[in-house]
Amino acid sequence: MSLKQESLNKTFGGELRKYSYQSQALGGLTTNLNVFLPPTAIGASAKAAPVLYYLAGLTCTEDNGAQKGGMFGAAASHGIALVFPDTSPRGAKIEGEDESWDFGTGAGFYVNADKAPWNKHYNTYDYVVREIPAKLSEAGLPIAVEKASIFGHSMGGHGALSIYLREAGKYKSASAFAPISHPTACPWGEKAFSGYFNDAAKGKEHDSTELISQAGGSSKRQLNILIDSGTGDNFYKQKQLLPEDFEAAARKAGYDAKDVNVRLQEGYDHSYFFISTFAGEHINWHAKFLTA
Amino acid sequence: MSLKQESLNKTFGGELRKYSYQSQALGGLTTNLNVFLPPTAIGASAKAAPVLYYLAGLTCTEDNGAQKGGMFGAAASHGIALVFPDTSPRGAKIEGEDESWDFGTGAGFYVNADKAPWNKHYNTYDYVVREIPAKLSEAGLPIAVEKASIFGHSMGGHGALSIYLREAGKYKSASAFAPISHPTACPWGEKAFSGYFNDAAKGKEHDSTELISQAGGSSKRQLNILIDSGTGDNFYKQKQLLPEDFEAAARKAGYDAKDVNVRLQEGYDHSYFFISTFAGEHINWHAKFLTA
Repeated sequence: MSLKQESLNKTFGGELRKYSYQSQALGGLTTNLNVFLPPTAIGASAKAAPVLYYLAGLTCTEDNGAQKGGMFGAAASHGIALVFPDTSPRGAKIEGEDESWDFGTGAGFYVNADKAPWNKHYNTYDYVVREIPAKLSEAGLPIAVEKASIFGHSMGGHGALSIYLREAGKYKSASAFAPISHPTACPWGEKAFSGYFNDAAKGKEHDSTELISQAGGSSKRQLNILIDSGTGDNFYKQKQLLPEDFEAAARKAGYDAKDVNVRLQEGYDHSYFFISTFAGEHINWHAKFLTA
Repeated sequence: MSLKQESLNKTFGGELRKYSYQSQALGGLTTNLNVFLPPTAIGASAKAAPVLYYLAGLTCTEDNGAQKGGMFGAAASHGIALVFPDTSPRGAKIEGEDESWDFGTGAGFYVNADKAPWNKHYNTYDYVVREIPAKLSEAGLPIAVEKASIFGHSMGGHGALSIYLREAGKYKSASAFAPISHPTACPWGEKAFSGYFNDAAKGKEHDSTELISQAGGSSKRQLNILIDSGTGDNFYKQKQLLPEDFEAAARKAGYDAKDVNVRLQEGYDHSYFFISTFAGEHINWHAKFLTA
């Protein structure tokens, strides 16, 4: 099914468009995504823009980053398109789906479930990595889907880092705000992976700290990763995020701060007030790789 | 009653604090406001910051501008504090108060009602102009309340312009996004003024187009006004905003575009996607007057 435009708002000289479509990855349910087209991708002399995907966190939708992220000014200035997927299928009507805020609706964790009954709809990995780029191309949007980078927040930071590490060559850079950096070692990740996978050990294949350990060695891949996490973030204090684990694994694998830059930001919390503070800097950083 | 701090988020090196207090202007009800303190107003070498008040529009609260306005980066860079009041009393329990979205709750219109039963609680003029600055001072916040400017959106744009024009010497500049510029000539204003005032003609005393007509003449006051309004805004098309009326009255009173700059922005609508596009420019413009 093709993209249907639901709304359009002009912003920073570009256009924020909300699209819906029936998603095969999400078991045939209707999903929404927001797409920001920069000024250079609009009008008579439009040229295709490189694209930066933003993956949102637990409880969020395609709207949080678009409404509160403060991202359009920087994206417009670099001629970068932004794509905001949803965080889960909506309305799969699976028992227990809406019982907790950190599993099920709003909490797809950017994996393909293999455990029934979740495996029919909860395939947010394919949704982000394969289906959405294909839909953008099919619709003829002025987006150069082969020039892509990815970033995200919290659960979406986990998604951005793990997708980037799994999909060599597909994304030019990855960054994250307060990512769940070592999900197999924290309650959020343990709950998600044991819920979506028959064998919870499969979670290691989506664990950024595990993945970066394997990315090192003599034939190691060039990595472009930037992470910001706030020291005033309660989830950081509760050890849901564990950016230090990811950083230690990166260093052990031979990546220095030029390749994998993990920064602790004094006093910042988990909110969009934190994200919006650093969003412009992240987009400027991605632009180096996307517009090179 | 003094300010009680309800929350604090670090953002752009500064602090966004939510305060509550029992408001005399609002008939003793508890009200909330958000205050952004720039980095220069925090810490050991803090110095008092000039202040820019942001008045929100119909249906909004103290949160809309803070969450979606994209205002903190510019305010932080100029060392300006931002104050976000609520748009009405909450919970006055007046019959009909919650029946429509453009009158009563969320729709105080920045006037002091003189009509019963509204006159006990609906005094959002005094709330913004007198009570909040006094509370900020009493609380010892690092804000130089004598260095103030004011801006707002839609109903709040009406508030900012009319308050600025009525209160000579109190504010250094005023700006507005899609303001209700001639309220006595549009349905929103007619409904509000006939609802809050015994004599609807009193609305003229709060009508920016009327007020600027009287501000001219041989001994005319220096004005610093900036207005942006989008041509894709449905309320503009429905003639709720009427920026052309305000502009014509300003020119007739002898103010040119240097004093009163009214700009139509092609294709922009009434949303925060429009406001956030121009918020940085408005704050930069206010900074010329606030930090001179």
